[in-house]
Amino acid sequence: MNQTAMARSWVEHANGHRDFPLQNLPLGIFSPAGQTPRCGVAIGDAILDLEAVLALGLLEGEAKVAVEATRGGALNAFFALGRGPRVALRERLQALLGEHSAHQQALTSALHAVHACQMHLPAKVGDYTDFYVGIEHARNVGKLFRPDNPLLPNYKHVPIAYHGRASTLRPSGTPVRRPKGQTLPAGHSEPAFGPCARLDYELELGIWIGQGNEMGQAIAIGDAAEHVAGYCLLNDWSARDIQAWEYQPLGPFLSKSFITTLSPWVVTAEALAPFRSAQAPRPEGDPQPLPYLYDERDQAQGALDIELEVLLLTERMRDEGLPAHRLTLSNSRSMYFTVAQMVTHHSVNGCQLQPGDLFGSGTLSGAEPGSFGSLLEITEGGKQPVQLASGEVRTFLEDGDEIILRARCSREGAASIGFGECRGRIVAAN
Amino acid sequence: MNQTAMARSWVEHANGHRDFPLQNLPLGIFSPAGQTPRCGVAIGDAILDLEAVLALGLLEGEAKVAVEATRGGALNAFFALGRGPRVALRERLQALLGEHSAHQQALTSALHAVHACQMHLPAKVGDYTDFYVGIEHARNVGKLFRPDNPLLPNYKHVPIAYHGRASTLRPSGTPVRRPKGQTLPAGHSEPAFGPCARLDYELELGIWIGQGNEMGQAIAIGDAAEHVAGYCLLNDWSARDIQAWEYQPLGPFLSKSFITTLSPWVVTAEALAPFRSAQAPRPEGDPQPLPYLYDERDQAQGALDIELEVLLLTERMRDEGLPAHRLTLSNSRSMYFTVAQMVTHHSVNGCQLQPGDLFGSGTLSGAEPGSFGSLLEITEGGKQPVQLASGEVRTFLEDGDEIILRARCSREGAASIGFGECRGRIVAAN
Repeated sequence: MNQTAMARSWVEHANGHRDFPLQNLPLGIFSPAGQTPRCGVAIGDAILDLEAVLALGLLEGEAKVAVEATRGGALNAFFALGRGPRVALRERLQALLGEHSAHQQALTSALHAVHACQMHLPAKVGDYTDFYVGIEHARNVGKLFRPDNPLLPNYKHVPIAYHGRASTLRPSGTPVRRPKGQTLPAGHSEPAFGPCARLDYELELGIWIGQGNEMGQAIAIGDAAEHVAGYCLLNDWSARDIQAWEYQPLGPFLSKSFITTLSPWVVTAEALAPFRSAQAPRPEGDPQPLPYLYDERDQAQGALDIELEVLLLTERMRDEGLPAHRLTLSNSRSMYFTVAQMVTHHSVNGCQLQPGDLFGSGTLSGAEPGSFGSLLEITEGGKQPVQLASGEVRTFLEDGDEIILRARCSREGAASIGFGECRGRIVAAN
Repeated sequence: MNQTAMARSWVEHANGHRDFPLQNLPLGIFSPAGQTPRCGVAIGDAILDLEAVLALGLLEGEAKVAVEATRGGALNAFFALGRGPRVALRERLQALLGEHSAHQQALTSALHAVHACQMHLPAKVGDYTDFYVGIEHARNVGKLFRPDNPLLPNYKHVPIAYHGRASTLRPSGTPVRRPKGQTLPAGHSEPAFGPCARLDYELELGIWIGQGNEMGQAIAIGDAAEHVAGYCLLNDWSARDIQAWEYQPLGPFLSKSFITTLSPWVVTAEALAPFRSAQAPRPEGDPQPLPYLYDERDQAQGALDIELEVLLLTERMRDEGLPAHRLTLSNSRSMYFTVAQMVTHHSVNGCQLQPGDLFGSGTLSGAEPGSFGSLLEITEGGKQPVQLASGEVRTFLEDGDEIILRARCSREGAASIGFGECRGRIVAAN
């Protein structure tokens, strides 16, 4: 156990905090009541206002440059700075918030209680790309259509992805309006129009792009990790009935674009470093990645070991004070391609990535019941309702249902960290 | 023939100009040599600098507000103002540039020769959505895979679309770097990696969104036209070999995202008003649009009658001074859904549209040879090479080839207008 893993903060509620101990220090954009959005760092149940820390004269050099780049209520310019200033800021904040800090009294004035603040999206997203690298999800969904041959021939070669809608990305807590749309009712040949009847969640990891690339210049696999600023949780809400009718031949469109919810804290690449692991060896018979996607170091430490959880809180559970029902417990190690492979593949045609672009991983399911990352998988396409601890049943989500995503990273010798929550409650269609 | 249709400008080269007579007045963002980008209006072979017109004190009221909103090198805030200020500016500029203008001498100082200016994208695109409403293209492409049943069951009900990549939208004249990517060579079961060997163009209309909507609030079909600011030409460059291998199950991705080229002038909804026509009656047996997509006025005048043309200029043609070869002559009337239907459908699930969002129409082909809007159609998937007037042949595009899109609107009793060119020349892969 190294020094940093043991380090404690003078912010007492941060020590042993589920999500935000001194070892995490995720960045976000927040507003204290009635004030303009600014950048802060989560520490326990508080937010440290970085603008206030700067005003106290406690930052210099690259750490100061980093905070200056967070001005304007979005982290895009900060992401553009890349790793150096981000690490300098992290190290300085770990010292300032550490138990031996000489500035406790001054810094106390820069802390806000998280419950008194509003969180915003951390960056203005230029483009949002949703991948499909959760192989167990691809297999679970593929089985519904092709029981004997669930994965398409390209799956193990290409990090499959599609462009998503950036304008409807929203922070945790934003109500989820049930979408309307065209669907083809079972047994009919003519479509109907109305509220979605098969509303679903998808458990994903979000990846924030740091430094970008020029159009026409691919990012080599060995450099790809340098282009990732951090991570969040992402709920890729899906209208399954709309999706089934609209998606041929160009893919999902309105079935996904009504809202996508993000957890508001950017958990940095540095905070996640202790939870990296080797990419799971590809099973016998699987192809090796093509050379442009292969890097030895990436294979050795490019995977992420993050435990992921989905909870459902129904109106009845809220009314009766019952605990939320766990729908999913899975792990990001089910990603068949690493984040570096996703970055390199995305740019290999010359496509320009920009600071503040967002990737979704695709749904991160496991192979076993209990680990499925969507109701589509859990209910086998709506055929097997799920029994909730409250006595209720669900095939898809009902108005009033709230979905809560959580993440947790734990490893021997490291302080555990989390991501905070990604919540969204369904409200009735207009 | 009404007064406006006959009106002449004191800018002599504008009268009878192929694209930009007094009746057009498209807006764009340009830089005179070495100066910062600002908004201008095309008039003949010149650009009128609107910032200079403002400085001359020649604008007031809504027209002044409109020009003030163009500051900062992007038209997003201008688009957000909606129709009123746009029309006020148009009317004022038609008076100022008309042959009876009292301000000819002063305004001459605000004119720049177009060849001495650099054009930029007119707006910062938040989201770019590519539709598929050109029914003849859908049929021509469908025939390659399903000769007896080219259109999928949803086609005549749903305005099919997918999210495109905003970061690689570029103005006319930007070189087109041949993309690299994964492809599945014929007869192989393992993919290869290398430069695209089936590089293609797609002839599309671009649609600039004006005022947006709040997330969760659909735009009613009767209001949809009010949300459209203007139009451009769009070349949806496509790597057919990459597309064929990557697109299942989530649609096109890297095969399209390397670059999309736009003509830089925003031809306003007002300039196109004389060239509106009734939506072509749906053939016997086709379904009627669902009620949310049906509006009597839209059916009566929602279609656009724009003649569209694609020229190919090869290196040999340039070297030998030969004229460009016309690959396509088609018309925007082949759109099976109107632009209003596209806007309404896009927002019906609650998706937020924002000022400066861009739609592509999808490839606008006709049914007959000579009117096909892509080489995929012209060469029947690469099987029938096209013979060029220069003696060369092509199946797909070669390095050095330049594709030029043009448009023209003509009608008895109206001055003809055009869009300017949308050009792109292929350069070798990196």
